Amino acid sequence: MSGTDHARFMALALSLGARGLGRVWPNPAVGCVIVKDGRIVGRGWTAPGGRPHAEPIALAQAGAAARGATAYVSLEPCSHHGQTPPCCEALIAAGVARVVTALEDPDPRVAGRGHAMLRAAGIEVMTGIQADAARRAHRGFLLNRQAGRPMVTLKLASSFDGRIATATGESQWITGPEARRLVHMQRARHDAVMVGGGTARADDPQLTVRGIGVPRQPVRVIVARRLDLPTTGQLAASVDAAPLWLCHGPDAPAARVADWTARGARLVEVAAGPGGHLDPAALMAALGRSGLTRVFCEGGGTLAASLLATGLVDELVGFTAGIALGAEGRPALGALGIEHLAEVPRLQLVETCAIGGDVMHRWERI
Amino acid sequence: MSGTDHARFMALALSLGARGLGRVWPNPAVGCVIVKDGRIVGRGWTAPGGRPHAEPIALAQAGAAARGATAYVSLEPCSHHGQTPPCCEALIAAGVARVVTALEDPDPRVAGRGHAMLRAAGIEVMTGIQADAARRAHRGFLLNRQAGRPMVTLKLASSFDGRIATATGESQWITGPEARRLVHMQRARHDAVMVGGGTARADDPQLTVRGIGVPRQPVRVIVARRLDLPTTGQLAASVDAAPLWLCHGPDAPAARVADWTARGARLVEVAAGPGGHLDPAALMAALGRSGLTRVFCEGGGTLAASLLATGLVDELVGFTAGIALGAEGRPALGALGIEHLAEVPRLQLVETCAIGGDVMHRWERI
Repeated sequence: MSGTDHARFMALALSLGARGLGRVWPNPAVGCVIVKDGRIVGRGWTAPGGRPHAEPIALAQAGAAARGATAYVSLEPCSHHGQTPPCCEALIAAGVARVVTALEDPDPRVAGRGHAMLRAAGIEVMTGIQADAARRAHRGFLLNRQAGRPMVTLKLASSFDGRIATATGESQWITGPEARRLVHMQRARHDAVMVGGGTARADDPQLTVRGIGVPRQPVRVIVARRLDLPTTGQLAASVDAAPLWLCHGPDAPAARVADWTARGARLVEVAAGPGGHLDPAALMAALGRSGLTRVFCEGGGTLAASLLATGLVDELVGFTAGIALGAEGRPALGALGIEHLAEVPRLQLVETCAIGGDVMHRWERI
Repeated sequence: MSGTDHARFMALALSLGARGLGRVWPNPAVGCVIVKDGRIVGRGWTAPGGRPHAEPIALAQAGAAARGATAYVSLEPCSHHGQTPPCCEALIAAGVARVVTALEDPDPRVAGRGHAMLRAAGIEVMTGIQADAARRAHRGFLLNRQAGRPMVTLKLASSFDGRIATATGESQWITGPEARRLVHMQRARHDAVMVGGGTARADDPQLTVRGIGVPRQPVRVIVARRLDLPTTGQLAASVDAAPLWLCHGPDAPAARVADWTARGARLVEVAAGPGGHLDPAALMAALGRSGLTRVFCEGGGTLAASLLATGLVDELVGFTAGIALGAEGRPALGALGIEHLAEVPRLQLVETCAIGGDVMHRWERI
């Protein structure tokens, strides 16, 4: 089999794995393809909730055909007994001849032990196939394991002059229905949807995924230092519809902590940073410890600016609508404290396209 | 010949005509294709400066082959003796059998007389072929003749949060070299480049077309009510490189009017409007009377906002760079005086694409 074939089957494994994004945390969204004599005999991806893993699903589909086959896995198979038996054992038991992986799993419980276990069983192991694409696909999981924080996708939907509401606060709707539907699809591909307290107060959002079927709603994360959130709004009313996590500072009134806990929210205390806001690095570390690998931040301007200013935005998804709101409108981003162009946060364009009557543009960390 | 053929040859005539955009004012940028027995025997477009017109150029190329041929012209041929003999006479003298046009010329000196003169000479005349495309191609000329003003293309190049400079005024460069080169190409396709006095003071721009060969520099229009412009900057130093028109209010000091006139600028007095700025409708009417058909406005925020707020922006070209400047940066648009979303200026997306590392998006009046 040629290198092109390896790359092609691994690309398929990666695209299967991507189906699990937003549904499998704290696990990685892995894809697996079993190939026998050039034909695909099994396909699998991490199931919603994180179990079963991709490999046993693909092996089950392949059945006896797995014997002597090649297994393409988008991340090193696990070697440890967690809540499921290790995938390496399953691959060995099925009698595969070769395992091709894209990346080593940085999780300290794996970290090369999976590859070693397979080799010890006499299986040929190739790794590093489509490694760049895999690093992008697993970015949230890798950041969680290596930097202790989830990846952050920032969404900015604004008028073409960068405003998100009129001076009087009107913001529904800046973008059209196609862009808003795409936002729901993007929410579904993240473990959590996050907004600042100001946005929660101003927009009274539900922050759930609607209009497309999802097996698992993303966690809703509200960042509100003093927990100054209405208890009569949609968030409070929908605690049972999707998890609600409230990130607050050490100075949040204990009565509010107790009240929201009683309402079913999960309270996450985060250290305060300079300027009276929560420290963005401490915030992301707390979310990382809670197992989140992918967070979709939908503003507001203050939270978005603090994440950009501290280099915590990994991807930016911008929507530009064909309207002007003028300088009196509310800005998409708060102050960054920047004086010179040399200091500004810079991102690299990934793609742009029309989505309905709006422009979508996607950028990532350089 | 089928309708599809007519549409195809007219599309060619329109694309040839577009070569004259920015070079032929106050004339329209017309294209002409002579077709004999299904083959193209002559092609022409309005020459820089507006003369010769497209038809005599195409007829000269066709020579004797024009006899019995079909002439596709993107606008009704002229019937009056201006600085050139009427094109209708040339078409009749060449013996063409049929003339196909896209639109009637609304100029009161033509307005159907061209078509009538051709028919009176026994030539078959078809009109309305590719009329929508022609109305878009000739938008500046049509607006000048029908509304007494040039079309306005507004350029906004900003960070993804809609800012054009840091708080300290640094703005070079927000966008990359590819986008800046495209801006020079767009300048070249307009009769004039226009900025407000604040931008002229802050950026000290040349506003000329550089890096691409152009036979005729666009007029530089500066809108400065009180003519508060530096006489030591690039504009003053380059009066010979490209025409410089200064639009000022009735209250501009007479000494400055005299000084700039002596320096070789053309002074255009415009009535003042509400808010202490020049009246945007009066400004555009004055530019229309001066013969301009296409104006490329490059800001600043105050001028751009006044044009958008008064419905005078026909096209918008946005460039979005992958940087954030934050709320303390200078906004791309000034205040619009808008309270509700129902009142905001709305434009319709025409296209979007990546240009270097930036996003280009083009919108037009709905």
